[in-house]
Parts: sequence; structure tokens; C-alpha cells
Amino acid sequence: MEDIPIRKLGKYGLIDHLSEGLETVNQSTVKGIGNDSSVIDSGDKYTLVSTDLLLEGIHFNLVYFPLKHLGYKSVIRGISDIYAMNGTPGQILIGLGISSKFSAGQIGEIYEGIKLACKKYEVDIAGGDITSSLTGLTISVTSIGYVEKEDLVKRDGARPNDLICVTGDFGASYMGLQLLERERKIFEQDKGIMPDLTGNDYVIGRQLKPEFPASALAELKNAGIRPGSMIDVTDGLASDLMQICKSSGTGCRIFNKQIPIDYETSRLAEEFNIDPLIPALNGGDDFELLFTVPLEMYEKVKQITSIKVIGHITEKGSGNYLIGADGTEVEIIAQGWWQEK
Amino acid sequence: MEDIPIRKLGKYGLIDHLSEGLETVNQSTVKGIGNDSSVIDSGDKYTLVSTDLLLEGIHFNLVYFPLKHLGYKSVIRGISDIYAMNGTPGQILIGLGISSKFSAGQIGEIYEGIKLACKKYEVDIAGGDITSSLTGLTISVTSIGYVEKEDLVKRDGARPNDLICVTGDFGASYMGLQLLERERKIFEQDKGIMPDLTGNDYVIGRQLKPEFPASALAELKNAGIRPGSMIDVTDGLASDLMQICKSSGTGCRIFNKQIPIDYETSRLAEEFNIDPLIPALNGGDDFELLFTVPLEMYEKVKQITSIKVIGHITEKGSGNYLIGADGTEVEIIAQGWWQEK
Repeated sequence: MEDIPIRKLGKYGLIDHLSEGLETVNQSTVKGIGNDSSVIDSGDKYTLVSTDLLLEGIHFNLVYFPLKHLGYKSVIRGISDIYAMNGTPGQILIGLGISSKFSAGQIGEIYEGIKLACKKYEVDIAGGDITSSLTGLTISVTSIGYVEKEDLVKRDGARPNDLICVTGDFGASYMGLQLLERERKIFEQDKGIMPDLTGNDYVIGRQLKPEFPASALAELKNAGIRPGSMIDVTDGLASDLMQICKSSGTGCRIFNKQIPIDYETSRLAEEFNIDPLIPALNGGDDFELLFTVPLEMYEKVKQITSIKVIGHITEKGSGNYLIGADGTEVEIIAQGWWQEK
Repeated sequence: MEDIPIRKLGKYGLIDHLSEGLETVNQSTVKGIGNDSSVIDSGDKYTLVSTDLLLEGIHFNLVYFPLKHLGYKSVIRGISDIYAMNGTPGQILIGLGISSKFSAGQIGEIYEGIKLACKKYEVDIAGGDITSSLTGLTISVTSIGYVEKEDLVKRDGARPNDLICVTGDFGASYMGLQLLERERKIFEQDKGIMPDLTGNDYVIGRQLKPEFPASALAELKNAGIRPGSMIDVTDGLASDLMQICKSSGTGCRIFNKQIPIDYETSRLAEEFNIDPLIPALNGGDDFELLFTVPLEMYEKVKQITSIKVIGHITEKGSGNYLIGADGTEVEIIAQGWWQEK
């Protein structure tokens, strides 16, 4: 590989490079790199396994991130990858790298949050690793889940004319983070000024204690709808939608009026002088589902109130566009992933 | 939990605290925290899953650790946990946290080593996660393996009078690390002095490019020997043996003359003015197997040249002792795990 800076390649460019020429030798390996989870053939079912790294300073700032919430969110991040393939999470393994500044009680707080999320989502803590760290807190989450073979949903199953559907709303977590960061900076400049977070409970909650819309998957199943492709929205709606289109070999059109944005997100975006569509498309940490269903399912999908249609899949080579209220088309570009906050 | 420093609790004390009151809800969860891997019931077989964190400055120093070797060793560390339960590794997931100082070419080098080890041990790279890091290189390794239900070996199956057996030799990796650290310090003080590592290929190789004695497991199987308990020696022979005894509710006696130590390790220990038994017992990163077999198996075990008997298991409450050549008994104490190198 050429010696080029990673920021130029991007996350997926780097993954493509690294996985070049990879062959598999074990029959149980079904689907490797390029989906939310790895798919392993366990005989009558598929076992799904995913791994996530959460690093202090990149994924969380302990100044405003309560340890218990951090534990909770780590679990959500992990199981999100299992749900994204239409699976049910079963077990989780937690790796902790902890520096000497932490006490056993503080690590216990992280675990309290982990246990709480595991209880809510019926996941067992099955093991892990604990090691000392020189450089702040590191959390790795390995999630294991299960799916009937015929129920597996991957990223590559979107077809032209499919409807693009989402759960929940977008950009709230990002605006929550902006708010917390702003108040942190004010507080650090003048310790006498207490952070003012009133009226922003929703966006802060979405950042610090997200939930995953697991019930939407059950509703889809009950309605007899099997998504053709699916992904969890964690990198940002635009980036994750482009993953679907890239894997499926399609284009897409989404309509800016259809993208669900909470009132609090919009108001706060205005306060920060940014178009609410920016956090909605590029914010990340939304923990929502993005999936496609055949056009014929429109009537069925419409009846599920937790799901919104935001656009449709188009032919290969037709590009990925956001359509404005006046019909203007803007190309969707995934924001840079390489964060150095 | 009381708010006490982690170094006082120790790794296993901390794990015990954190896993207090943990209940499992999913039928597939067989064995949680307290073994090398988590055991998941996949119908006709068990699926084994383990996770390891490797952190820059704690587990490796990039000044002398070539990136390719680091990738290789990360895989060895991961699959070691699968072999330790008598399983066969099948897949691996790699999480990388990389700071901006790394280029794509350098990450490619890490992956070269990962691919090389995966090829040798017939493991598929099934996925992973890549994220930016503020604080140096972080590698998480999730290993997945398989074992027939009747072949699973845990830590808790040692019984009084069982023979304590090991593969390979001990302390070499630790002495390799000491040597590399010494030469690094000399080099940093005077860049004109080139590191002198001649005559120490074995110990340096054991530190930088360890292998795992997977063939010993095959030899045991062929000889019809099923270990009662087993662990991989990565934290140090003393610490890992005590894990077996603690889990099994037994004591042990090992004989210092029986502990395999390579000539190079002994010579270098002398050069460093330490008793070679110290790195052998407490060094860590040996990547060998420690297991127990019933006394009746002695004749069979003796015929396997790659395996050595170092002692025997004793009754509960009889303590863990190292027996000297003159019959003196020294209590075995696991060295502190909480490293702040």
C-alpha cells in the first residue's frame, strides 16, 4: 500500500485497502468485512459478531459524560450492529483499558450502566478483558447475536425503486454534543458559570443515554415486511445511506422535507447558526435504523407510525441526491470520518 | 462498591467485584466471566468468543516493536484464549484505534502481520472496527472458535493428585522485553550507540513474534489424553496456575527444577542479576499451555516430548508452593498485574 495519510483515504477506503485479497478458509465464515456484523454459520442459524472501540477524547469526554451513561451507551453501540442485520443480541464481552486515575468504584459505575442496558435489552455479559492503560479510558465492545438464516438482512440488498425508510429522528445527538462542548468550554474559562442545559433534555439525552429502536424490527416482522437492505445510523444518515447504495450498486434520492428532525434539534441548530439538515445528515450517534423495502410495501409501511419514508433507491450511476422543497438537487457527500476533536 | 484504588484489588479482584450478582437470561450463554473465552451453546457445538485489548505503552512500545510483528502477536494473543479451552479458532475481528501519526502504509504493515498469522493458524479475518485515536495505537482482538461439547476444557477441572503439565519454556519473552527496554534506554541517551542484540535471538523472537503450541493439543488428542483443566500462560506461570487452583478449589506443588527455562533466558537473567525463576514464574507473554491430567496418565504424557510435568495438584487449603532442590517450600504469589510501565 502507498504511504498516504489516512484522512485522505477515509475509513471505508482504508478498510477496502486492508481487506484486499482476503480469502477465507473456514466454512463457517459467511460474510466478512463490509457489514455491521460478521456472519458465522452455526448450523441452523447464523451467529452475528461485531466489535466496537470507544476511546476517551474521541467518542466521549469524561468532563460531561457520566460513567454510568458511558457504560449504557457502549452496550447500545454494540448491540446496534446486531439489530442492523435483523438479529437479536444475546451476549456481550467488554474490554476495559483503564488508567491509574480510575478507582474501582468508578469502574463499577461504568459496569452499572452496562448491566442496566444489558438487562433492558436482554443481553448477557459473557466475559471480557481488563487491562491498565497509559492514556485514558478505552472500551471495546464485542456483541454476539443470532438470526434465522432466512431473516438475515445485509447492506447490499437495495434495488431501484425501493423505499428508503428510517426510524426516529436525526441530528439530536450531535446537537446535544455541541451544546455539552459549548458549556464545557464556558465552564473551563470561568468556573463560576454553571452550565445551562435547561430546555435541551431531549438532545442531551440522545447524546448521553441513547436507546435503540429494537421494537421497530418487531413491528416490521409482525407486518410481514422484510427489509431488502439495512444499516444502523451511527456514522451519520448521509454516510450510512451511501454505504447501502455503494454495497447495493445503486443511487438514491432523499427529500429534505421528509427527514425527521426533532423540534429541539432544529431550534438548537438555529442557535448555533447551522442548517438543521447538517447535523441530521452528518451528525452521527443517532442509533436509528435505515432500511429499504420494495415499493409495493408502501401501504404496509405507512401504517407503522415509528417508521418514515424519506426517499427511494435509484439506478446505478444516477448518483446520491438530496431533493429540496423547490426541486433542487444537492449531491450527498459523506462528511469526513477522521475526527481529531 | 467501595471507592478503592484498582491496584489494591488486582485484576481478578476487580473482575469478581464487577461480575457480582450477574445473572444470565439467554439460554445460549453457557459460561460467562472467569474463563479464557466465553462459551456459547450453538446447538451441536460450543462457540467460544474472547476479547483482548492491546494498548500502546502497556502491551507494546513502537520504538522496537515492528508493526508487522505487532499484528502477528495480536492474533496469537487472541487465538490463545480459544486454544486454552481446547477449541479451534475460526474467525477473528480486529478493532484499531489509530492516531494521526500513522499512515495507511503503516496500518497496512500491521495488517500484513495479522494476515500472516491468520494464514498460519487457519483463521479468517471476519470484520472489525477502525477509529481515530487521540492517544496512540489501540488494538482489540475478538476471537471466535469452536469445540465439540465433550471436548471443552475449563479452568475449574483440576483435582488433587492431578499432574500439572506445560508446553514450551518460560520467562524468555520477559527477558526479551527487558533486553529491548535496556537497549532502547541506552540508544535514547546516546543515539550513536546502536543496540546490540546479538546472541539473543530466541528471547527477542519470543517477545516480538511468539507462536502458539497448537500442535500440542493435537498430540494430546491423538494420545487419548483430555486435560481436566487448562489455561494459556500469558499473565505469568504463577498467576495462571493460581487461576487454575482458585477455580478448581485446590492447592498445588510445583518443583523449581522441573520448570522449563531456555539457556538464553537463564544467561540473560544472570546478566540482569535476577534469578531465572522470577521471569519464568512471573514474566508473562509466554503463550504456552498449562493443564492438568489425572496421575494415571503419567506414562502417556511422558511420551509426548513437547510436554513437561512440573508438579501436582493438592487438596484445598494446602496452599500453592514452589519446592526447591533442597526441599524448601516457597509460597507462590502472583505478581501485581497493575502495570504502569
